[in-house]
Amino acid sequence: MFDVVTLGEAMLRLSPPDFLRLEQTDKFDCRPGGAELNVAVACARLGLKSCWASRLPNHALGWMIRNKAREHGVSDEGIVWGGSGERVGVYYMEFGASPRASKVLYDRGGAAVTRLKPGDVDWDKLFDGSRHFHTTGITPALSESCAAVTREAMEAAKRHGLSVSYDLNYRSKLWKPDVACAMQEPLMELVDILITTEEDTKVVFGIEAEGGDSETFTSVDAASYGQVAKKLADRFGFSTVAITLRENPSVWFNSWSAIAYHEGQFLTDVKRDVEIVDRVGGGDSFAGGFIYGLLTGDVSYGLRFGNAFSAIKHSIPGDFAWITRDEVEAVMSGAGLRVQR
Amino acid sequence: MFDVVTLGEAMLRLSPPDFLRLEQTDKFDCRPGGAELNVAVACARLGLKSCWASRLPNHALGWMIRNKAREHGVSDEGIVWGGSGERVGVYYMEFGASPRASKVLYDRGGAAVTRLKPGDVDWDKLFDGSRHFHTTGITPALSESCAAVTREAMEAAKRHGLSVSYDLNYRSKLWKPDVACAMQEPLMELVDILITTEEDTKVVFGIEAEGGDSETFTSVDAASYGQVAKKLADRFGFSTVAITLRENPSVWFNSWSAIAYHEGQFLTDVKRDVEIVDRVGGGDSFAGGFIYGLLTGDVSYGLRFGNAFSAIKHSIPGDFAWITRDEVEAVMSGAGLRVQR
Amino acid sequence: MFDVVTLGEAMLRLSPPDFLRLEQTDKFDCRPGGAELNVAVACARLGLKSCWASRLPNHALGWMIRNKAREHGVSDEGIVWGGSGERVGVYYMEFGASPRASKVLYDRGGAAVTRLKPGDVDWDKLFDGSRHFHTTGITPALSESCAAVTREAMEAAKRHGLSVSYDLNYRSKLWKPDVACAMQEPLMELVDILITTEEDTKVVFGIEAEGGDSETFTSVDAASYGQVAKKLADRFGFSTVAITLRENPSVWFNSWSAIAYHEGQFLTDVKRDVEIVDRVGGGDSFAGGFIYGLLTGDVSYGLRFGNAFSAIKHSIPGDFAWITRDEVEAVMSGAGLRVQR
Amino acid sequence: MFDVVTLGEAMLRLSPPDFLRLEQTDKFDCRPGGAELNVAVACARLGLKSCWASRLPNHALGWMIRNKAREHGVSDEGIVWGGSGERVGVYYMEFGASPRASKVLYDRGGAAVTRLKPGDVDWDKLFDGSRHFHTTGITPALSESCAAVTREAMEAAKRHGLSVSYDLNYRSKLWKPDVACAMQEPLMELVDILITTEEDTKVVFGIEAEGGDSETFTSVDAASYGQVAKKLADRFGFSTVAITLRENPSVWFNSWSAIAYHEGQFLTDVKRDVEIVDRVGGGDSFAGGFIYGLLTGDVSYGLRFGNAFSAIKHSIPGDFAWITRDEVEAVMSGAGLRVQR
Amino acid sequence: MFDVVTLGEAMLRLSPPDFLRLEQTDKFDCRPGGAELNVAVACARLGLKSCWASRLPNHALGWMIRNKAREHGVSDEGIVWGGSGERVGVYYMEFGASPRASKVLYDRGGAAVTRLKPGDVDWDKLFDGSRHFHTTGITPALSESCAAVTREAMEAAKRHGLSVSYDLNYRSKLWKPDVACAMQEPLMELVDILITTEEDTKVVFGIEAEGGDSETFTSVDAASYGQVAKKLADRFGFSTVAITLRENPSVWFNSWSAIAYHEGQFLTDVKRDVEIVDRVGGGDSFAGGFIYGLLTGDVSYGLRFGNAFSAIKHSIPGDFAWITRDEVEAVMSGAGLRVQR
Amino acid sequence: MFDVVTLGEAMLRLSPPDFLRLEQTDKFDCRPGGAELNVAVACARLGLKSCWASRLPNHALGWMIRNKAREHGVSDEGIVWGGSGERVGVYYMEFGASPRASKVLYDRGGAAVTRLKPGDVDWDKLFDGSRHFHTTGITPALSESCAAVTREAMEAAKRHGLSVSYDLNYRSKLWKPDVACAMQEPLMELVDILITTEEDTKVVFGIEAEGGDSETFTSVDAASYGQVAKKLADRFGFSTVAITLRENPSVWFNSWSAIAYHEGQFLTDVKRDVEIVDRVGGGDSFAGGFIYGLLTGDVSYGLRFGNAFSAIKHSIPGDFAWITRDEVEAVMSGAGLRVQR
Repeated sequence: MFDVVTLGEAMLRLSPPDFLRLEQTDKFDCRPGGAELNVAVACARLGLKSCWASRLPNHALGWMIRNKAREHGVSDEGIVWGGSGERVGVYYMEFGASPRASKVLYDRGGAAVTRLKPGDVDWDKLFDGSRHFHTTGITPALSESCAAVTREAMEAAKRHGLSVSYDLNYRSKLWKPDVACAMQEPLMELVDILITTEEDTKVVFGIEAEGGDSETFTSVDAASYGQVAKKLADRFGFSTVAITLRENPSVWFNSWSAIAYHEGQFLTDVKRDVEIVDRVGGGDSFAGGFIYGLLTGDVSYGLRFGNAFSAIKHSIPGDFAWITRDEVEAVMSGAGLRVQR
Repeated sequence: MFDVVTLGEAMLRLSPPDFLRLEQTDKFDCRPGGAELNVAVACARLGLKSCWASRLPNHALGWMIRNKAREHGVSDEGIVWGGSGERVGVYYMEFGASPRASKVLYDRGGAAVTRLKPGDVDWDKLFDGSRHFHTTGITPALSESCAAVTREAMEAAKRHGLSVSYDLNYRSKLWKPDVACAMQEPLMELVDILITTEEDTKVVFGIEAEGGDSETFTSVDAASYGQVAKKLADRFGFSTVAITLRENPSVWFNSWSAIAYHEGQFLTDVKRDVEIVDRVGGGDSFAGGFIYGLLTGDVSYGLRFGNAFSAIKHSIPGDFAWITRDEVEAVMSGAGLRVQR
Repeated sequence: MFDVVTLGEAMLRLSPPDFLRLEQTDKFDCRPGGAELNVAVACARLGLKSCWASRLPNHALGWMIRNKAREHGVSDEGIVWGGSGERVGVYYMEFGASPRASKVLYDRGGAAVTRLKPGDVDWDKLFDGSRHFHTTGITPALSESCAAVTREAMEAAKRHGLSVSYDLNYRSKLWKPDVACAMQEPLMELVDILITTEEDTKVVFGIEAEGGDSETFTSVDAASYGQVAKKLADRFGFSTVAITLRENPSVWFNSWSAIAYHEGQFLTDVKRDVEIVDRVGGGDSFAGGFIYGLLTGDVSYGLRFGNAFSAIKHSIPGDFAWITRDEVEAVMSGAGLRVQR
Repeated sequence: MFDVVTLGEAMLRLSPPDFLRLEQTDKFDCRPGGAELNVAVACARLGLKSCWASRLPNHALGWMIRNKAREHGVSDEGIVWGGSGERVGVYYMEFGASPRASKVLYDRGGAAVTRLKPGDVDWDKLFDGSRHFHTTGITPALSESCAAVTREAMEAAKRHGLSVSYDLNYRSKLWKPDVACAMQEPLMELVDILITTEEDTKVVFGIEAEGGDSETFTSVDAASYGQVAKKLADRFGFSTVAITLRENPSVWFNSWSAIAYHEGQFLTDVKRDVEIVDRVGGGDSFAGGFIYGLLTGDVSYGLRFGNAFSAIKHSIPGDFAWITRDEVEAVMSGAGLRVQR
Repeated sequence: MFDVVTLGEAMLRLSPPDFLRLEQTDKFDCRPGGAELNVAVACARLGLKSCWASRLPNHALGWMIRNKAREHGVSDEGIVWGGSGERVGVYYMEFGASPRASKVLYDRGGAAVTRLKPGDVDWDKLFDGSRHFHTTGITPALSESCAAVTREAMEAAKRHGLSVSYDLNYRSKLWKPDVACAMQEPLMELVDILITTEEDTKVVFGIEAEGGDSETFTSVDAASYGQVAKKLADRFGFSTVAITLRENPSVWFNSWSAIAYHEGQFLTDVKRDVEIVDRVGGGDSFAGGFIYGLLTGDVSYGLRFGNAFSAIKHSIPGDFAWITRDEVEAVMSGAGLRVQR
Repeated sequence: MFDVVTLGEAMLRLSPPDFLRLEQTDKFDCRPGGAELNVAVACARLGLKSCWASRLPNHALGWMIRNKAREHGVSDEGIVWGGSGERVGVYYMEFGASPRASKVLYDRGGAAVTRLKPGDVDWDKLFDGSRHFHTTGITPALSESCAAVTREAMEAAKRHGLSVSYDLNYRSKLWKPDVACAMQEPLMELVDILITTEEDTKVVFGIEAEGGDSETFTSVDAASYGQVAKKLADRFGFSTVAITLRENPSVWFNSWSAIAYHEGQFLTDVKRDVEIVDRVGGGDSFAGGFIYGLLTGDVSYGLRFGNAFSAIKHSIPGDFAWITRDEVEAVMSGAGLRVQR
């Protein structure tokens, strides 16, 4: 029924405008977001039928998140409704400028989604006739019952013949590396496609690149990350591994690329200069674009599409990738930076 | 050392601008507030030395609340600092227009203050040489340990010879009426001055006014509330009871007054027309103005001062009463509504 | 398949903030709206399956309107996509204060919807298994082909057994009264339920109320409008006629009610005081609430529900009625105006 | 050459948005204004050729004020340019709500205009072929040299055959009543038309109305103000006296009217309800509308036009009357308060 | 009478703030602009007497555009007023960040100006005693009658002895290259000074530079553009050709220069680094500054002045060049980038 | 009693948002600031007990400045209160982009602080048990009596055994170089630590660096500034001289460093890339961080701490350094620019 189904939490992102510090602000911009919702939105915008599964409180803030998913055409059939006394998680996002890095303060404890438990979502219904399932390492970290739902969903996906992608998305405030490793290793056998960053594989699975500056990431080396991808594929049997590569010489200017390893082959793409309006959701938009590319083309197209799509994302306020397919194609084919009239 | 010490929670108030509904907004105005902090701020602004005791997380949002207290001259000596992983409570405030009432959505569960426990605050230090202690029915409702701290503080206040005021401030989301009654009745013997509204005494203690429209409060009857005040004083032995009276024929226009009962005497004041910019903190500002009046004059002055002070508060954005003594005196003496140049 | 299908134009509403005059502003708030979309949104929010048929240009502004419909759960299956070189209509809305009335400046000529022509919308698909069709007098006024589509849709609705409602919604900038009358009279035989205002029946069909101040509408007389409704029903054979009644003693404060005539019976409801945040969409929200009430109850319930629903709408920025069923029920059962916590 | 020439100071008005108190704000709306500039703008908007004489510093803030005058078609030929190190006056405007009156904090000392001295403005050039000169009691109060320029301008106006109007506009921060009286009495012989308020004639010339509430002005009595006008005309020999009458039962809602005394005749007009967006400039817009009416009609038309014009002004942000002649005519002929489409 | 007269359309520019995408925004900043108005404003700001001829609808948006021209001292004598039912064109401007280029969405069809026809503007009056006429390739592209008015104006200019400048300003949404060429070639004989960009001569006249990256313009080669200028002068007999040169390695950072060819001589100027706040109007400000330089100095001064003036323009929000002569001179003489106090 | 006491003026900074030019804006952001207050705030934020001495008018704007000092924990004991008719200074700050430098327009003449006179501040009370006094070259330039107070304070500081630091902070609008030199030379004997920039020593004392571009400062040479520091120490006998070094290749991107000379030793620190959000207060934050480092460590630590602290300041809106010690330590130890979660 759906091309893509995702599972995860969405939060309100509250961010002070105009580079104000969090301590200093008396205004917030409010935009919903969450890794797996971001992927569902990306896929829906690109023309895939997508659905996002989660649990939301039954009040204005829960409705707001549902609305914003629907706004982009994401189906709300996967949403389980909690009570009106529950909460949505919030994260406060402070935008920086060199040498002050941007900063996230999480207030996500006890959100409605943490009470999601096996049996709540009707996976058989959502997966019937569907093609792909995606979740990330945030979901099993939310609560024990969320970890159980993650496994439940992945097993159901396999049963229904869906391909499964997984973004490691390590969150240090949710769990420690050893727990993250112990909890996720067993899940990896259900994963076909691993999507991750140059940081997370090192922290969670202890697999790291050689060369580059692995502390500050002012430069990263694509080749050595090919080796990381291969090691991951070899260890866990993934058919495909994709890794995004970010260099941040400054806060407002990054360069961005991605590599993939697929059935013995290394694939790379161009490095793109990005001027940073909002880099949160950058990795999620890569995942969304990559999945879109895979489902409509192949790994090579997915890599190039995901890379261009997520490069553009850095220029857009909010977690969501308000981008069209045509715009991605134009960037992929080398469009210039003149005003388009 | 202090003229007034208060104890309680402060939260961030997030409110959509321009009458937007909560579900609809993508912007929030953020202002700290909390019943007892509001009273401390009111007293400090009026020239009293005031201190606010609470527990805050050690991150930007906790600092923000501390800063805003300090901005008005409230001492931060009573603040106990929690960890950087804790949270501040948040409440979402939606401003209405007839026939849509304004609405508050609380997200205060698990705030840092709920972990405040007996022994955390050095009451002997704060109360040494101090004159008055104030708290409200919100504090004991926050958690069991907060209830214990409330009692601890009130007993310490008595021990140090402070007068004690208490605002019932019933919050239906925090506890049920019977629990509120059972928990607070024992505290009442430590209270000298009860400050409350026409709604709360009915809900918590089952003491209600005769006459008036006790459902919608389009009109209220001062005389019958005098009887309520007397009943309260008789039952609990308060030296003074003050009740604020609000009539709300519409959302943007209310009339506002207060009565007091003191040692057998009924006191009333004029009914004031108020155009509503922000009515949250109206009751707290009455408490602050009343306490100021008591400490610098007598009950009659306190009633009149508190009434005028809190009437003005309705015209001011945010929980705090950004008002000067001179402005209150001017309203009390009948200043007109022409532009003041 | 749908409970309610509507047909019509949606525009961008550009309004200066803070009571600035149009000539004076350098900022606009932008919100999509349009009579029939507003009704579809109202119905969707109340739990009905609703669909909106229209034609939009294939660029960001067309997508924006589609998104905002989807945000509330309105199906986008009825949207016909034009080219990327077409335009959406715009209307500039200036908010007033007595004695300056609010003002609308239309810039809707040549919008993509005016090119909608018979055969573009697959009515058989949209109406299959559906219950109700709604449009307004704006649609046939947009262009000749839009008038043809209006008729096409109404005939198809009849053929599929849907009930049909029609809001006169006279727009003097689109056509003259005599043309409006000549064009719409033939349509009336396809209409079951006429929804209109105290002004429009007079202008279009020359049927007017006796009594009241029909120039400035500082007061209106419900009884005489019952006669208007009866005359309309008698002349055109409507099963039901509903008329909204607005008194505007000032710009910021109106009173609002509605009456209905149904199979020989006159129905009235209470007059509600409304403080005006944004009165555009007031009539549309009545239509939405009335249709909801009819489909889930009866005419009497529809009248009362529609009246309360649309009274609340006046307090909400934008054309859409961001209201829940529970809130309407609360107002209908006499909820007060205190802050709801 | 000009229909109307005015002389006076313009300042920047800095006002906190959203009813924030001055002490509380971190944002200001900035709009230029000043009694005599406001009149020049009003006249230009109504189609008269108008010119404003003043002195401005030669930097961005001086240019801003000049620009804003030109924006409405006011000629900048009367502006004398000071140095780039001089200042423009500022006034901070705080918007209130009952029972908190709106408040102005002036910071106008030492503004460039205070250095304007006789000989700076080429009156012969400005007045050649011109019809009317207007200034107010603020100008001679600014500095001794400004007082001299005021006299210079009035004498030149008389010499060139212009009619002269004068608005008392008493400002207590600029001078004391006795000084104001002593300084202005000699000027009155050069005045044809006195425009004033119910407050200022009492303070400056000790002429006051009988009846009404002369302290808070919750109601005012038109008839007794007719007597005031007559006394003024009798004492100073004015051909015409016009007095604006404001009742302010609340801050957001006033009623507004005006009366005139002209060659033995009393003229009154309807009392208009005004919802207050911004009442600063209300009196100036009366003066502008009244002068326009006089120059294009007669006293009776001027009174009615000025009254309607200035009533509308109360609904418009800023000092200037962004109003068209057509709108005034519509209000004069009883236009309703429905949305104008 | 005027130093410079220009002819063309002005539109409202509606741009989402804070890098929001058009699809995403609910706020717009509104600023009038248009190539030829921008030039008239630039010239007026620099001290020339300037006048802008156009046609505007007679409602608030038409007045707004007229006001904004007057604000800078541009004469409104050349404005022809249409009816109140006509429209002004709008363009939606989306600000980008690499790799997302900024984007313009035009909604200019059917604007009041398209109805401007020969005979509407009194050229003899405007050109009597005037020095220079300027228009651009947008004007003849607006409508057939606008093309006729363009020719009418240019012929009148020649008749009155004015010099004529023309900016090619090719707009692909208005006409195709071959039409643009066919329509404009005959006009070129009336042109003295052609001002254009490195892109437009290629598209319209098929004259292009050798070297540089003519697709994405990450670098441009001044020398080869000298050849382009020479070819243009040779083919059409212009006395002067000026070409602006933009390199855009990123969206936020460009380098900017210009070259000129005048009577056999090549002139170049320094390349300036520009941080981009708003690059729309960059070319127009070059034209304005160049014309100013020509009229007050010579081609060489014009080139240097225009280059510095337009480089500064890139730092200023809106189409207009809010710059003073002193600031241009300072940049021309090498002022640093320290805060100026 | 205090670790640090400072003396000086604070003003309101009014800055147009979004790179608007001052002439162009109708909105201002308002933030208090002033060199010596900025230092007091910096020190308080870093954990030192700090106090700021000044004179403020007794109205909302004076209270606002006091409040903002208290917000960060700065003691208000040193504030002398003037009358309600006095003023606070204002400065208008325009943010630029290359090639348009940022610009300050001062309107500080006649501020309340200029009336501060010897005897007003109780230095003995403020300095009793205190450690360090700081002021800048702005204070003696404000008025003769301010110059006298500066000397009074420095002598009192010496008497009480405080160390004294002085930032040259030359302001060309306040005095000429020769006066600045003549007035400050006698003060230098009371100074232990001189803090200055690469520009000010040249202007005031004629001591300048060799090499670097001393006009535009696109690059600066640390070594040659060491010589400048040594010359200063030699001439005036300072124990320590610190100089901040700014290179501004563009307005939005600077590099920043500092050097110190202390008892014959040269100290340098890394050059830091800074993306500029707001560079005003950059030098003051260096002073604050340097003093903090000196009082809690040594010159070397002070230099490195001050350099990192002030580099971060450039990323923060407003004059104040909303930074924590932990953040400074993180930057000092090489933290990367990834989003911190």
